[in-house]
Amino acid sequence: MKHSKSVGIVLVLVAGLLVVASLGSSTILGSTSTSEGRLRRITLIAMEGKDGSWTYNGTVPAPLIIIEEGDTVLLTLINRLPGTNVSVHVHGVHYDIFSDGTIHTRSYAPPGGFYVYKWFAAPGTAGTWPFHDHVALNSEVEGTERGLYGAVVVRKPGELPPDREFLLVMIGTTFNGKKFPNAPLLVANLGERVRFHIITLGSEFHTFHLHGHRWIDPGTTKLVDTKTIGPAESYSFEIIAGEGVGVGDWMYHCHVHQHIRDGMIGFFRVTLPGQEVPSLIHGNHTFPLPHP
Amino acid sequence: MKHSKSVGIVLVLVAGLLVVASLGSSTILGSTSTSEGRLRRITLIAMEGKDGSWTYNGTVPAPLIIIEEGDTVLLTLINRLPGTNVSVHVHGVHYDIFSDGTIHTRSYAPPGGFYVYKWFAAPGTAGTWPFHDHVALNSEVEGTERGLYGAVVVRKPGELPPDREFLLVMIGTTFNGKKFPNAPLLVANLGERVRFHIITLGSEFHTFHLHGHRWIDPGTTKLVDTKTIGPAESYSFEIIAGEGVGVGDWMYHCHVHQHIRDGMIGFFRVTLPGQEVPSLIHGNHTFPLPHP
Amino acid sequence: MKHSKSVGIVLVLVAGLLVVASLGSSTILGSTSTSEGRLRRITLIAMEGKDGSWTYNGTVPAPLIIIEEGDTVLLTLINRLPGTNVSVHVHGVHYDIFSDGTIHTRSYAPPGGFYVYKWFAAPGTAGTWPFHDHVALNSEVEGTERGLYGAVVVRKPGELPPDREFLLVMIGTTFNGKKFPNAPLLVANLGERVRFHIITLGSEFHTFHLHGHRWIDPGTTKLVDTKTIGPAESYSFEIIAGEGVGVGDWMYHCHVHQHIRDGMIGFFRVTLPGQEVPSLIHGNHTFPLPHP
Repeated sequence: MKHSKSVGIVLVLVAGLLVVASLGSSTILGSTSTSEGRLRRITLIAMEGKDGSWTYNGTVPAPLIIIEEGDTVLLTLINRLPGTNVSVHVHGVHYDIFSDGTIHTRSYAPPGGFYVYKWFAAPGTAGTWPFHDHVALNSEVEGTERGLYGAVVVRKPGELPPDREFLLVMIGTTFNGKKFPNAPLLVANLGERVRFHIITLGSEFHTFHLHGHRWIDPGTTKLVDTKTIGPAESYSFEIIAGEGVGVGDWMYHCHVHQHIRDGMIGFFRVTLPGQEVPSLIHGNHTFPLPHP
Repeated sequence: MKHSKSVGIVLVLVAGLLVVASLGSSTILGSTSTSEGRLRRITLIAMEGKDGSWTYNGTVPAPLIIIEEGDTVLLTLINRLPGTNVSVHVHGVHYDIFSDGTIHTRSYAPPGGFYVYKWFAAPGTAGTWPFHDHVALNSEVEGTERGLYGAVVVRKPGELPPDREFLLVMIGTTFNGKKFPNAPLLVANLGERVRFHIITLGSEFHTFHLHGHRWIDPGTTKLVDTKTIGPAESYSFEIIAGEGVGVGDWMYHCHVHQHIRDGMIGFFRVTLPGQEVPSLIHGNHTFPLPHP
Repeated sequence: MKHSKSVGIVLVLVAGLLVVASLGSSTILGSTSTSEGRLRRITLIAMEGKDGSWTYNGTVPAPLIIIEEGDTVLLTLINRLPGTNVSVHVHGVHYDIFSDGTIHTRSYAPPGGFYVYKWFAAPGTAGTWPFHDHVALNSEVEGTERGLYGAVVVRKPGELPPDREFLLVMIGTTFNGKKFPNAPLLVANLGERVRFHIITLGSEFHTFHLHGHRWIDPGTTKLVDTKTIGPAESYSFEIIAGEGVGVGDWMYHCHVHQHIRDGMIGFFRVTLPGQEVPSLIHGNHTFPLPHP
């Protein structure tokens, strides 16, 4: 099986490799096979990031967690944030009320402490799901807005991973906390199977649009190239990079005009293997381009 | 056929029982079988509620109306509101232009008067549909915002009703006009089949999220636990209470951060039959809880 | 094959006829059959409209473009706007990066100049798709907001066109730039098959609602009469005019309360062939109406 190149933004790229590298052996993540599916041990450390944001394991979003249906996850949350409780509330998978990550269930890590969550990726829960803090500063949302969010991908057993996959979190008027020209530059080779995992968090509704590409709206038979995604919805779809349109720097952006004005724009670069297309997206757009 | 426990919030619970109790006999609602389906007679009285809101039959939302495909409804609207026309505009079912409930068709009850609407739940119109005023104070929306709204459920003939069903109307930053900690407390036994009827009205878009549960997005094959619902859309789905997650006080809330901040949070209590789970949702959350 | 009566608002009606009339012969649009599908030549002229809006070919929205899967479009954009670049960015169909209509690809017509775009309506891209400016005033959105938008309908080969079809663009709190009572009056005969092409652009989310009618949400099996549509999403569905409800002036409107207050209301008039129903929608609504 071809190894999946799991990448997000640069930070997620690093973090994603960390995740993959650490599966099964490190003190950060571990995996044990059982007759009822694997037991995955994951450690998330709530900590301040370099830019003052609050993070799980130093990145915003958190490292992408990839598991399979049947897996059980023991997730240890260590709280190194100053003077606040912190939690992990996950969507989609199964867990009992003591792994809910909410205030009223007291399922959080106190300052300097830790908490262990147990998730079960029951058969039928394959998909992409957000996770996020639900308690910091005694608020359901404040921790998320400071950066405490990520996603878990539950694959079906035997599912062939895509060649590339990208996590984009639409929050405020940013992708992964970044605006144009700093929003994630996503790169794939022409013809590769690429999966986008889009998650929205915050108070805004968005429409995700990718130039030059279109896809079947998952779960339906409708062809789309723009999709409404509301807070905490997740939206995961696949395309073939450059299919029918070729190489180029293809914009992705929220299509809400005010969000475009606010810089909610990034680029998906489709290249030939071993070759870079001329960058169109930096500088002042004044260099000559060939005319078709 | 097991009798459906049709309940909403406390007000709807009372009103819902009124509806069920009055079917077939009272002056409020009546039913006559015909060869072309039953004829249902329903009376709604537009009146001020105890808290000054405007209501149909004293509750916000109005009593849940449950009919079947093939039924014809003769709905008499009596206007006891002071100094305004009032109407009922329904979605989904069939009716002619004189039952539209709009200003330009003059299909409304004048002050102190009444109006008779005729609906036909044509085969193929099964679903959950909002109804609401469309004329009060010469406005399409003012009456709705004051409380004149409800829902009609059209079942398929022979459809097995769920064990429990709840109507939640997302309007402003409330559920059924109520905010945390007064939003409806919904209670079901572990393993019961529970149907949520969610309707949005007003100017806001919402994402409905239920902790610990997930469901197939109706009409599609996509698994979700959070769903965008815009004004006047209805969204009806079923879950098994506590399936894979067990008993507990499971939050339901809009996932728009600003709406969470504004208190758009309630609880779905999953209990064992004849047993109450310890309430986690009242008081100051400081009592000890068992750790898993 | 019955000829489709492609109409939108009055402006689109005129423009729509222009499109149809000019196919194959004029200097505005042309068509050449090839073994790989027809080659369609289309000319759009970016110009000021009578009311100061910016337009393609003088109308807002632009003339509805109707093509078929397999068609190639050579679209010449002529820029007669004062002192700005202008472009056409299309959704859904195939095109290479030099037909993207974006700033960073320099695929635009300079002041006084022109640009040629090549689209390919690849098999599988049937649907309704927006197109719009992406560069005017060095902004992704300013040109669209001034009126530079339209839609292309890609039909499947052999598809039977509807009896009527209407394009409604929800932008700001208008339909096609118009508010009540000037929003498009759409007219169809009872029993005709009518297709609505709804497109949203701008910063607002909308819920499109049509009184007295309901339809299967395309791509799903869910019956709806109200639908959330976000910026740049397109939503195309069919109804039978007056099915189960008869003739009348049926409102269509966005169901967001604030948008209703702002006048986002129009009418769909269902008549008998050769007969007009009494107009209910003009004047002060005080004329007597028959009571059912």
